[in-house]
This record gives sequence, structure tokens and C-alpha cells, in this order.
Amino acid sequence: MSPNQPGQPPKLPIPGVKNLIAVGSGKGGVGKTTVAVNLAIGLAKLGHPTGLMDADVYGPNVPLMMGINRTPMAYGERIQPLDQYGVKLMSMGFLNPGDKPLVWRGPMLHSVIQQFLRGVDWGDLDYLVIDLPPGTGDVQLTLIQTAPITGAIVVTTPSDVSLEDARKAVHMFHQVKVPILGIVENMSYLICPQCNERIDVFSHGGGRRTAGEMKVHFLGELPLNPDVRVGGDSGKPVVLTAGPGTAGEGFLELARNMMRRIEEMGPQQVPSIEITD
Amino acid sequence: MSPNQPGQPPKLPIPGVKNLIAVGSGKGGVGKTTVAVNLAIGLAKLGHPTGLMDADVYGPNVPLMMGINRTPMAYGERIQPLDQYGVKLMSMGFLNPGDKPLVWRGPMLHSVIQQFLRGVDWGDLDYLVIDLPPGTGDVQLTLIQTAPITGAIVVTTPSDVSLEDARKAVHMFHQVKVPILGIVENMSYLICPQCNERIDVFSHGGGRRTAGEMKVHFLGELPLNPDVRVGGDSGKPVVLTAGPGTAGEGFLELARNMMRRIEEMGPQQVPSIEITD
Repeated sequence: MSPNQPGQPPKLPIPGVKNLIAVGSGKGGVGKTTVAVNLAIGLAKLGHPTGLMDADVYGPNVPLMMGINRTPMAYGERIQPLDQYGVKLMSMGFLNPGDKPLVWRGPMLHSVIQQFLRGVDWGDLDYLVIDLPPGTGDVQLTLIQTAPITGAIVVTTPSDVSLEDARKAVHMFHQVKVPILGIVENMSYLICPQCNERIDVFSHGGGRRTAGEMKVHFLGELPLNPDVRVGGDSGKPVVLTAGPGTAGEGFLELARNMMRRIEEMGPQQVPSIEITD
Repeated sequence: MSPNQPGQPPKLPIPGVKNLIAVGSGKGGVGKTTVAVNLAIGLAKLGHPTGLMDADVYGPNVPLMMGINRTPMAYGERIQPLDQYGVKLMSMGFLNPGDKPLVWRGPMLHSVIQQFLRGVDWGDLDYLVIDLPPGTGDVQLTLIQTAPITGAIVVTTPSDVSLEDARKAVHMFHQVKVPILGIVENMSYLICPQCNERIDVFSHGGGRRTAGEMKVHFLGELPLNPDVRVGGDSGKPVVLTAGPGTAGEGFLELARNMMRRIEEMGPQQVPSIEITD
């Protein structure tokens, strides 16, 4: 499972893209896409050219959450990404709109993922955020084995069930030698809109504890705030209106924490051209 | 995509098993396993011999939620399922305990699924509940193409993002001609434990509306109750202590609704031996 096993293609960099950030989770529904979308917009708001690639080919929620769904244009061999809120976007949802499911087996996905990575005209980006599908299946393997990922963010809720799967995701990234930027605890707690009391719906603190146990960084906790869900459902992610005391502020803080982590990791971790014979 | 395409193996019944119930979702993290676990225990409590097969091979949460994790015994060629709370159990979690992820490609999963279906000594069951992985990938295809599924339950939350994927799951079951027993809206609303006000964390009512639009049954709504999460994390599902006004009661009601639906569907839908040449 090493990233450059004999006989495997080398992890060629994507021209113009400085950092490839994978956002994954062991379990679905923990807010992985919410984090990916708000993180990408947050990075763009902080002045960094950013792209977002929706690799969740079976359940691509990025178009809904970003409030955009058009068929991308192609010039020659290159697909032009869409642009929304200052972020360049590509998603299977743009190519397969509506409710029809993709009932595809693994091998058919590989060429789609390669197209998204290398056939899209991403241009010059500081960050290309990749929203992985949940779990440890075919799409994740293909991506990890072919793309020079700078680092991975693992999203979890504080529930034991979610943490059980998050540990699996951390192990997967370790196995394939992708550096872990850190764990994010999402849906960390809820402030009751009526009485302002705090409710630990999915428990609390397990993300930080698990990060400590597994010796990976903890990137922060994000509350379970109905505004975040409304933002996603309405195509206007909360980070767009981030300000002190708002739900969006936590995502800007996450973007800053992530950038700091990449700086700490140093240039030796940044992908370079590797030629393996 | 029809269930008995030429050249495909016929959907042989599983000897002794009267009804095969698939619990699926488009999106992960909507409470699919929580519903499967509580439904299975509920059916057993209502007097029906019931089994639960955890087909979520990448993120098998059934052992944690059922509070049991031992290696099953094999007698001759037959694997003996575990028994907990009156339900016969099989899960990849029993065979691959701990945090190591399964980094398997699609074809490797097919034989595991077949083993779980036909190599396990399920005995005489009124219901075998199958906890599918989320989405519309390899495992779902294998199961649907080889097992005579009585009907499928689609679990969703009321958020638009979850409903978008739930519609895809409904379409998938339609395409492969598996009858839909109905849609369940989970995490429907939260009652604040402090002030008893109702909070629509993930919106509300979309499950019933979507069921109406897609002309499938609506099997009910289940509140987002911290007791349900605690029950799952502690291995003591809430349906065990179901009583009037408790979180578990909704799951008993779901079990009754499901049985009623199967009765309404009539015997013509119940799988019978099909021999195709």
C-alpha cells in the first residue's frame, strides 16, 4: 500500500497546483462536504487562489451546497471548471445532474477521477481541496495512489461510532503515507436557539482525545449550528458571512490552522516530481 | 440493471429466511445503522426470529452498537452467527476488529458478501435485516443482483443534502426492481433537554414530502434524541427499553409499520425460487 509501489504510476504533480488537500472521513454524514466547501471558500477569502474538486462521485453534494449547477465547457481537451464565490469547481454533479444515481463499479470511476485531476484547467492554485467520498474504498485508493497529496484532513463527529471510523481513515492515510494535517470535530455541540443552553447532541471532546491518542494534530471543533445546515441547503455556505460570533468564523479559523500546519510540515513534505522506474 | 439479466446468477432464496430487508441510504451518517439495529431488535421483541447482517464492510458499526465483538465459530463449512438481544448477527467487524481499515477494491468484496449471505448458519428467520453501506456502489450492486430482497427501507434526514442522495437511492432500487417499503426520516427534530423547546436542527418534513413526490410510502419520523446516540455508543440500543414516551418507542412503531407494508405488498412480492437457464 505504499504510494509508489513498483509497477504503479509515479505521483506526478498537477501543473500550477501548489497544495493538494484531501478532506476525508471514515463515516459519511459527519459534515465532510460542509467542511470542504467552507474551507475552500475560506482559503479564497484569505486571498489564496483555491479550487474544490468533488470526488464524492456517488453522492456529489458540492453543487447544491455551492449553489451552482451548470454543464462545464470544454476547450480542446481541457474542461473549464465552474467559478463560484471565488473558488474553481468541478463535480460529478455537474455532469450527471438530477436524481439519477451512478450505479458504477470501481474501475469505471478511475478514469473519471483522473479526468477531474488532470483534464480540468485548474490554472494556478495555492490550494486544491478534494472532497473525498467517505470510507476507504476504490475512489480513495485511486486518488491516493496517483495524486501527490500534501496532506489530509479527517472530519468526525464526537460520537464513538464516528470516531471508530475516523480512526480507520487515519490508519488508511498512514498506510498509504499521506501526511495527516489533523482531525476536525464537527457537530461538536449545539447551542439551543431558544434557551442558549449547550446540548452535546453527539457527545463532545472525542475528536481532540482521538487526535491525542493517534498522535495527529487537532484542528479544532465546529459547533452543530442550524445556520450551517441552512447555508449548505441554500447554496450559501456560512463562511461567506463569517464574522465574530457567527457560525462561519470557525471555518475561517480552520483555514488558518490548516495553513499553519502546512507551513510547520516544511517544504520536504510538499510533493515534488518523482520519477520511478 | 434488471435483477435477472441473462448471464447473471438467479436470485436463489436463502433457505429458512422468509423476508430479506435492505436498509439503505444515499448519504452516510443519517442513522442507517441505528435504524437497522433498532429495527432488528424491535422485530425480535415483537416475537419474530430476526437476523442482522452488517454489509457495511468499510465502516461496520454494528458490533459497537450491539455491544458485542467476538470471532464467530465455524462448524464445517458454516459460520455460526453471534447472538445478542435475541438477534442473530454477522459483521465484518467480527472478522476485522480494531482500527485497521479494509482497503479493498470492489471485486474482493463480492465473495465476502456471498459468504455472509449463504455461508452463515442463519437458521429459520422471519426477517433478515441487511445494513447496506451508504450510496450506490459495488456492495449494493452485488447484494441486489444476487439476493432476493423483499423490500428496501431508505433512511434520510430532513436536510436537502440528505434528501438529494435519498432520491438517488430510491431511483437505484427502482432501477434494479427492488420494492421500496418506504422512507424513514431520521434526526427529524430535537427536543431541547433544558427548555423542552423543539429545534429543527436539520429542517423537518422533507422525508414525508419526498416520499409523496416519489410515490413511495412514508414509514415515519424519528427524533434526533441524544438517548439514541448514547444507546448506540454504549452498545445498548434504545429500543431495548422502549416504552411510551421514550426514544425507543418510535423504532417499535417503525417495525410494526414495516410488517404492515410487507403484508400489504402481498405474497406475489415475496421471493420464490427462480430457475433461469
